[in-house]
Amino acid sequence: MPQYKAPLRDINFVLKNVLNCNEHFASLAGREQVGEDLVDAIIAEGAKFAENVLSPLNQVGDQEGCVWSEEGVKTPTGFKEAYEQFAEGGWPSMTADPKFGGQGLPNSLGLVVSEMTSSACWSWGMYTGLSQSAARLLENYAAEDLQQTYLPKMTDGTWGGTMCLTEPHCGSDLGILRTKAESAADGSYKVTGTKIFISGGEHDMMENIIHLVLARIEGAPEGTKGISLFLVPKFLPDADGNVGERNGVSCGSIEHKMGIKASATCVMNFDGATGFLVGEENRGLNAMFHMMNSARLGTALQGLSAGEASFQGALAYATERLQMRSLTGPKNPDGPADPLIVHPDVRRMLLTQKALAEGSRAFIYWVSQLIDVSYFSGDEQARKDAENLSELLTPIAKAFVTETGLESANYGMQVFGGHGYISEWGMEQIVRDLRISTLYEGTTGIQALDLLGRKVMGSGGKQLMVFTKIIHDFCKANEGKEEMAPFISKLAELNKEWGDVTMKIGEKAMENPDEVGAASVDYLMYSGYISLAYMWARMVAVALEGDRDDEFLKAKLQTANFYFQRLLPRTESHKLSMLNGAESLMAMPAEAFAF
Amino acid sequence: MPQYKAPLRDINFVLKNVLNCNEHFASLAGREQVGEDLVDAIIAEGAKFAENVLSPLNQVGDQEGCVWSEEGVKTPTGFKEAYEQFAEGGWPSMTADPKFGGQGLPNSLGLVVSEMTSSACWSWGMYTGLSQSAARLLENYAAEDLQQTYLPKMTDGTWGGTMCLTEPHCGSDLGILRTKAESAADGSYKVTGTKIFISGGEHDMMENIIHLVLARIEGAPEGTKGISLFLVPKFLPDADGNVGERNGVSCGSIEHKMGIKASATCVMNFDGATGFLVGEENRGLNAMFHMMNSARLGTALQGLSAGEASFQGALAYATERLQMRSLTGPKNPDGPADPLIVHPDVRRMLLTQKALAEGSRAFIYWVSQLIDVSYFSGDEQARKDAENLSELLTPIAKAFVTETGLESANYGMQVFGGHGYISEWGMEQIVRDLRISTLYEGTTGIQALDLLGRKVMGSGGKQLMVFTKIIHDFCKANEGKEEMAPFISKLAELNKEWGDVTMKIGEKAMENPDEVGAASVDYLMYSGYISLAYMWARMVAVALEGDRDDEFLKAKLQTANFYFQRLLPRTESHKLSMLNGAESLMAMPAEAFAF
Repeated sequence: MPQYKAPLRDINFVLKNVLNCNEHFASLAGREQVGEDLVDAIIAEGAKFAENVLSPLNQVGDQEGCVWSEEGVKTPTGFKEAYEQFAEGGWPSMTADPKFGGQGLPNSLGLVVSEMTSSACWSWGMYTGLSQSAARLLENYAAEDLQQTYLPKMTDGTWGGTMCLTEPHCGSDLGILRTKAESAADGSYKVTGTKIFISGGEHDMMENIIHLVLARIEGAPEGTKGISLFLVPKFLPDADGNVGERNGVSCGSIEHKMGIKASATCVMNFDGATGFLVGEENRGLNAMFHMMNSARLGTALQGLSAGEASFQGALAYATERLQMRSLTGPKNPDGPADPLIVHPDVRRMLLTQKALAEGSRAFIYWVSQLIDVSYFSGDEQARKDAENLSELLTPIAKAFVTETGLESANYGMQVFGGHGYISEWGMEQIVRDLRISTLYEGTTGIQALDLLGRKVMGSGGKQLMVFTKIIHDFCKANEGKEEMAPFISKLAELNKEWGDVTMKIGEKAMENPDEVGAASVDYLMYSGYISLAYMWARMVAVALEGDRDDEFLKAKLQTANFYFQRLLPRTESHKLSMLNGAESLMAMPAEAFAF
Repeated sequence: MPQYKAPLRDINFVLKNVLNCNEHFASLAGREQVGEDLVDAIIAEGAKFAENVLSPLNQVGDQEGCVWSEEGVKTPTGFKEAYEQFAEGGWPSMTADPKFGGQGLPNSLGLVVSEMTSSACWSWGMYTGLSQSAARLLENYAAEDLQQTYLPKMTDGTWGGTMCLTEPHCGSDLGILRTKAESAADGSYKVTGTKIFISGGEHDMMENIIHLVLARIEGAPEGTKGISLFLVPKFLPDADGNVGERNGVSCGSIEHKMGIKASATCVMNFDGATGFLVGEENRGLNAMFHMMNSARLGTALQGLSAGEASFQGALAYATERLQMRSLTGPKNPDGPADPLIVHPDVRRMLLTQKALAEGSRAFIYWVSQLIDVSYFSGDEQARKDAENLSELLTPIAKAFVTETGLESANYGMQVFGGHGYISEWGMEQIVRDLRISTLYEGTTGIQALDLLGRKVMGSGGKQLMVFTKIIHDFCKANEGKEEMAPFISKLAELNKEWGDVTMKIGEKAMENPDEVGAASVDYLMYSGYISLAYMWARMVAVALEGDRDDEFLKAKLQTANFYFQRLLPRTESHKLSMLNGAESLMAMPAEAFAF
């Protein structure tokens, strides 16, 4: 099982050198005081917790899984104790609103800690990540009295939370959901229905679980415009705000899954459970979607986290395992064979993992800063612009980083040869855990439709042009710098092509809306490779300004070169494929797919 | 769990219409009498067995797995009974030598049955597949007395067999293996050492297990030239040829793996076990490699089999599951939503699965016919040519079909959305089972080096030219046929490009051998897409000669069109990536990969 080691040098490089986090924090209302010392302390302590407390739980969590009984769900050995340590350390309150006891730190800093906990133990990170998302939603949408009752305990981590969206007959298509809410005399509601795939719906790590449930108030309009959001606690608080009477919500069973076995995926039965409306009637999806950007970026982060963990495991093995001689003659003449890392194709796999992890880290951290700005900038225009751009980039980050993360994790197994298939090594667990990330929080197909249909086409191309303008300006600013030239010329060429390709698809889509769906996933992957090329070019610009003898910076430039030479050409196939259009997808009648 | 249904229409189309199996069988010495009735009966009965007996065992096999104890390994419920039925039906003897009770049927016909059994239950198929490989090896390499003692019982399926190559410290690099053989006074050997990853090394399905073991005779030269092959039975036969004394070989443990859990992957301890030399001293790898072509094609077949099974599951779900409306307006206006299959991106995934499965089927069946010819043609030149070509195509088939099979199985999960991650549906098992196929029987990287280094460069390009000439001739023969034109023009263009790209890499490789390794996997995938394009063009030619109203043939043409429009453009990225060469892979010192 690979022992996780937080990539502190790269995290610091991205945060401080590429994204100037000090300047960024200083621009955020109420976050100006986040100094470098605090940042360093948080990262260092987060790394210790992830490496020493969580990493050892990862394999045990997979082996034991969660156990359901009538009394509840038992998490694997050590999960509860690790959580107690996490709560005592004050981590759940990090990015929470100071009004309810939070530390009010920027989300982009919280994200760094989440990266490390996810790399060390994905399943464990699910309980805390979703609890924090639920708290953020309540901070933004719940009425004052609900906030006062629930947020202090969610902030200090005594209570957790969930998001209850999916039902047996609907996942992506929430418009047809059936869970009902009947209004009661005291202003509360009675919530009845079945929700599935509820992560952390029931477990033994926290004292109470606050479910945020989408349901339909009797008489509400059909479709997505008749969906409201309710807070349904597992235990109703008593008069003192402590855990009181058990509410009418229970976990019917947990799913047997490919991976993330230590994360309880619950079927939740709401049986006239007492719920409280959050936000306005029939505007529940609005509140949920607002939070979804963060949740989707959180999923992108999981893709990166697992890709990083897999890279670390594969690199260690490739350095130690002796197998075959180098094609250019022995590199370890005194040993029986050379280490795997001498072989070009092993290097191709490792560098693919490295280039994807580092590029994705820079990309996600940047998008997270944009989300910070959209919430906390003092400048209204800056808030709006950042919101717009982050909405464009989030589906790219979510789908691209999880899809390429899966590729990376598969390479991590592949470097091990047959040993990669053996559970003991832990490499196959990473693939199984990661596999959920292209499915939940909106599949890759849903992200792609969101990007191309809703954001790009929906804005008449304008939302894209905000980004291509940024890239264009970056290329202009770096024109004439000799060492930047190979990167800038390729990036500028692709940036222009991106606009052209978008126009072509837009024209076709005016005649046939299926053209959007037919192009969408290729378009998203194409966009992802260009987005990462932009991040890599930014990293090159920073690295070139640093110490030329610094081995880390040299490796940065070499990895960038690898990315541009060996991964970026993938845009070409995605482009050709999507420009070939919808006809070959739509021609076959459904009955003719099989005989 | 998807219920497997043998794709009989397509199997028959490929076998009879595309590959003219009747003519082919008639050209094989001793196989001339294989008539169409026999072929039909075998396929029909094989399909029934796969659908009715094996398919129901697949999920149970995954859930129960194999259980090790001091007494041996217990296979999952129903495995033994299914095997008894298989043996009673005479299936193990199908392609075996009539001299030992075999039916002497062509391997390319046996392959069809293997496809069906693998699709229905991969793990179960491993026991029979490896036993038959071991028997074929003994037919070709063992001395007459060994054959007489072991082959009759291996032919009727009473006894099974294994291949014991890998050791803890060596997998791909067999040159450094350590298992020892000391010669005994009676001409036998005492074999001592530990082998790992031995599929079916111990189990309860057959009366005796005949291990074929690579070991080093004392005093043999170092490296690959000092390796010999030994037959080491679990039970030594008594004077009557029945199971006698237990030999000094035992199963120390079985591996916990990502998938194929019902296939026992054993650590085998040889402790002075009695073994008998097969073939010549120090020529063991030669015998093993000779059989490896078939074993590798068998692995390619597994990739196809699992891809087909995943396609069937995904198609059924996409037809039934209602979710969201079509982008072009409701297609199921009376229902709450449209079936998934109306959505272009779902169709893209399904058609990718379909095009890969059908293209791979045609490709593998064709290569299998070449192997038939290489063994049994009466014409020596034909035998030699077929051997040459099959040696070129086998690594392509093995690596390309397993890699794309994995993509296909991941799409199969993806079509299910979150449900794809839930074990109950069976879609994630297919991914886990399939994942072994890019690792065992030589990883994708090993296949790629075999293709580009050994076959293409090793023959100075000649072995490739045999194939590009065939494609060239096919294109010439179909010139001027209007409906073929879009396929032929693209295929001819790529065929020429293939040669050019090979030349360029060859030139670079003369200066730096690492260029071969650096290009190898991209080169293999590039070659695979062109190979499948050739098979698809052949299928188009046949389909165009058929009944124009036949829905199956129409779908064939539509799938071919999809393949050329949406999958074949992938050659472009592989080409650009590999032509960018080794420099970006080799520049970074091993120590600089991590900080």
